[in-house]
Amino acid sequence: MALTHVNEKGEAHMVDVGEKPPTKRKATASGVVRMQKSTLDLIVQGGLAKGDALAVARVSGIMAAKKTPDLIPLCHPLPISSVKIDFATTENSVKIIATVATTAPTGVEMEALTAVSVAALSLYDMIKAVDRSAIIEQILLEEKSGGKSGHYVR
Amino acid sequence: MALTHVNEKGEAHMVDVGEKPPTKRKATASGVVRMQKSTLDLIVQGGLAKGDALAVARVSGIMAAKKTPDLIPLCHPLPISSVKIDFATTENSVKIIATVATTAPTGVEMEALTAVSVAALSLYDMIKAVDRSAIIEQILLEEKSGGKSGHYVR
Amino acid sequence: MALTHVNEKGEAHMVDVGEKPPTKRKATASGVVRMQKSTLDLIVQGGLAKGDALAVARVSGIMAAKKTPDLIPLCHPLPISSVKIDFATTENSVKIIATVATTAPTGVEMEALTAVSVAALSLYDMIKAVDRSAIIEQILLEEKSGGKSGHYVR
Amino acid sequence: MALTHVNEKGEAHMVDVGEKPPTKRKATASGVVRMQKSTLDLIVQGGLAKGDALAVARVSGIMAAKKTPDLIPLCHPLPISSVKIDFATTENSVKIIATVATTAPTGVEMEALTAVSVAALSLYDMIKAVDRSAIIEQILLEEKSGGKSGHYVR
Amino acid sequence: MALTHVNEKGEAHMVDVGEKPPTKRKATASGVVRMQKSTLDLIVQGGLAKGDALAVARVSGIMAAKKTPDLIPLCHPLPISSVKIDFATTENSVKIIATVATTAPTGVEMEALTAVSVAALSLYDMIKAVDRSAIIEQILLEEKSGGKSGHYVR
Amino acid sequence: MALTHVNEKGEAHMVDVGEKPPTKRKATASGVVRMQKSTLDLIVQGGLAKGDALAVARVSGIMAAKKTPDLIPLCHPLPISSVKIDFATTENSVKIIATVATTAPTGVEMEALTAVSVAALSLYDMIKAVDRSAIIEQILLEEKSGGKSGHYVR
Repeated sequence: MALTHVNEKGEAHMVDVGEKPPTKRKATASGVVRMQKSTLDLIVQGGLAKGDALAVARVSGIMAAKKTPDLIPLCHPLPISSVKIDFATTENSVKIIATVATTAPTGVEMEALTAVSVAALSLYDMIKAVDRSAIIEQILLEEKSGGKSGHYVR
Repeated sequence: MALTHVNEKGEAHMVDVGEKPPTKRKATASGVVRMQKSTLDLIVQGGLAKGDALAVARVSGIMAAKKTPDLIPLCHPLPISSVKIDFATTENSVKIIATVATTAPTGVEMEALTAVSVAALSLYDMIKAVDRSAIIEQILLEEKSGGKSGHYVR
Repeated sequence: MALTHVNEKGEAHMVDVGEKPPTKRKATASGVVRMQKSTLDLIVQGGLAKGDALAVARVSGIMAAKKTPDLIPLCHPLPISSVKIDFATTENSVKIIATVATTAPTGVEMEALTAVSVAALSLYDMIKAVDRSAIIEQILLEEKSGGKSGHYVR
Repeated sequence: MALTHVNEKGEAHMVDVGEKPPTKRKATASGVVRMQKSTLDLIVQGGLAKGDALAVARVSGIMAAKKTPDLIPLCHPLPISSVKIDFATTENSVKIIATVATTAPTGVEMEALTAVSVAALSLYDMIKAVDRSAIIEQILLEEKSGGKSGHYVR
Repeated sequence: MALTHVNEKGEAHMVDVGEKPPTKRKATASGVVRMQKSTLDLIVQGGLAKGDALAVARVSGIMAAKKTPDLIPLCHPLPISSVKIDFATTENSVKIIATVATTAPTGVEMEALTAVSVAALSLYDMIKAVDRSAIIEQILLEEKSGGKSGHYVR
Repeated sequence: MALTHVNEKGEAHMVDVGEKPPTKRKATASGVVRMQKSTLDLIVQGGLAKGDALAVARVSGIMAAKKTPDLIPLCHPLPISSVKIDFATTENSVKIIATVATTAPTGVEMEALTAVSVAALSLYDMIKAVDRSAIIEQILLEEKSGGKSGHYVR
């Protein structure tokens, strides 16, 4: 077994997807921002967003999905067809769930994970003055469909 | 207590740092990519990088630090004076540690956290074909110095 | 009637265009930079461009069309197939007309409007030292074709 | 009188601000998105934002202020110290007011105007499916302070 | 004969490729960084890369290929399907060879040339403190295939 | 002697310039696009630019100077204070000369070289349909001043 993104000499390259037909692909990723309960209260109340904080995080995640090939060196540029970002809260955390779709020769896992990561960073940015010790954790691929490797559910 | 990045009506804005003098600031953040032991063996051998994989992740993290204000909506553009990214491995994980410095009216915590996050995503991108279940976790601020809020160590 | 770009809870998302087939689409937008007659004389003489000013504005508009998905949060990335920017002058204004085309599942209205807006801003930038009170006005969609909503002429 | 951004041969260049000391500068710009009354009702109710639409426009404007030197060819990169975007509504229009500040050798008029323009475009993007004929108008500099040319109020 | 990128009045535009079907296209470009023998020894030893220097150059070139439409005003955005960058060394130079492929209505010559140019600049950046007089030379198109103009070999 | 951009283990990092005071710095770089005489005639006539071609190249070079830290992985972001691009023609070549200035703790050699390279690529882009064999050559640093290493003239 070997890494697909480096050749036999260990040199990085952008994998050739020119022989793969474009097909429908979808990926869902998630991640968690863990914070103090009092911090969460500044953002959400009774399950409802207070002010722009969650909207800012959502917009930053959607925009980041589009920037994925500019951030991740070996990612292909893809014609993203949709991005959706949801938030779910416990009493001291915000879970970020991003779903991205495309019709392309390669998948959108990285786009979904990048959307989650940047939305999490934006959320941290807004709470860091009151809760510097907040942590971003459990960024992972929940599910993907389409492509040769088929359907994956964590 | 209230969020600094939204006003009393909950509207987001870029905080005014115009009255703060530029001072030396430094921040260190870290994060972990947890993977299968066999995956790690593809990247590192006896503590030494094999091929370009870690270099690609390092470069992507350094470049991402510079893109922070383009990714995080309410971050100020800053004249970064250094970025350093180190890797430490256990038998089934790679820890990414990023240190960023500047002389500016505001700190570089977000730059360090963004460098860590994007380096982690780039690493995941390179191993995902062999280890889709790898997880990015424990992205956090290790230490910061400079500015009114003073020295912070986790 | 409801906004297409937010869901029933008011949350923004990038609309799913994955089920729409790519078709030929074209959009023309325009806008006006109104300035003093003496300012216009610095740029245009007898209907002919003097020096690089109009070329700079034209290039900035063409490049901005390509940056649309990076500027407008909920826009899809599109494979633009052409961009054309024309200028028409009256005695105290420059009208900017941009036409953009693509073959894609969604239209290029935003690309045409963004091209016009940025070309107008670039023109203002070059004249602002001599005519700070110049105004950008009447940015609007002139015409669009292709897609389910069909041909639109203002 | 001549344009500052082109030399005597008409060739564009980025004006040399190397001899000018950095000073505090501020600029306020505004613009208007005119739409049908029924469209406005989808965004604002009783003066209160409904859902994310205004937040999306605000975030896009703040981010665009930071992209100004990447959009406007002859603009200098500046260390923006604050960006604020407000909305005021009449019964059929949204007025966008952006204020940007910096400490730099040159002003932030273009940053304020770019923030207004992109926020307006983002707003148009969200309403275009229900109100294609909406118009962006009256983008202008309201006020600027700092720098050799002094205080300007429209 | 006339330039394709300007109209009969000499005005620049992005050429319309909307009538051309997407076909497979590939381009290879190369360039040379000439330096002192002692400088080359800092980067390469016995034909093997020492440290990250070549990897940094390679990554920067791959990422630059994706930025081509953002750098070259009249280039179309293209769905790049692969990028590969190789280095060949003589005793006092590094030759950079980039191959880019796509399936698109227009070719990837500019992407290959941009990858070479930026990889060369990155290499120069890393050696400039020890060898300021190094030169980048002979950036040229080696070969292209696909498209109406057919196969070209220098 | 060792490369400044990698540490003793060969790992790349952005060099720390935090201890260096900002001083005035200037750099001039040049490069040549060699083409057929008949191609040059399409761009320049009697030493005068025909149409927008040279203006497009000039604008792209100015904009590229500002993108340098986004292209060259280990470059610091700098507050560029001026960019100037000149063209000199022989009977079968265009020489591009770029001069960039800043007040910063590090120099602008890379900004000047990047401006030249991208202006050259843009010029090649416009002539490639009529002269695919054109070559970009002799990209080099002509002169730099400011900083600890002092004045350098090639």
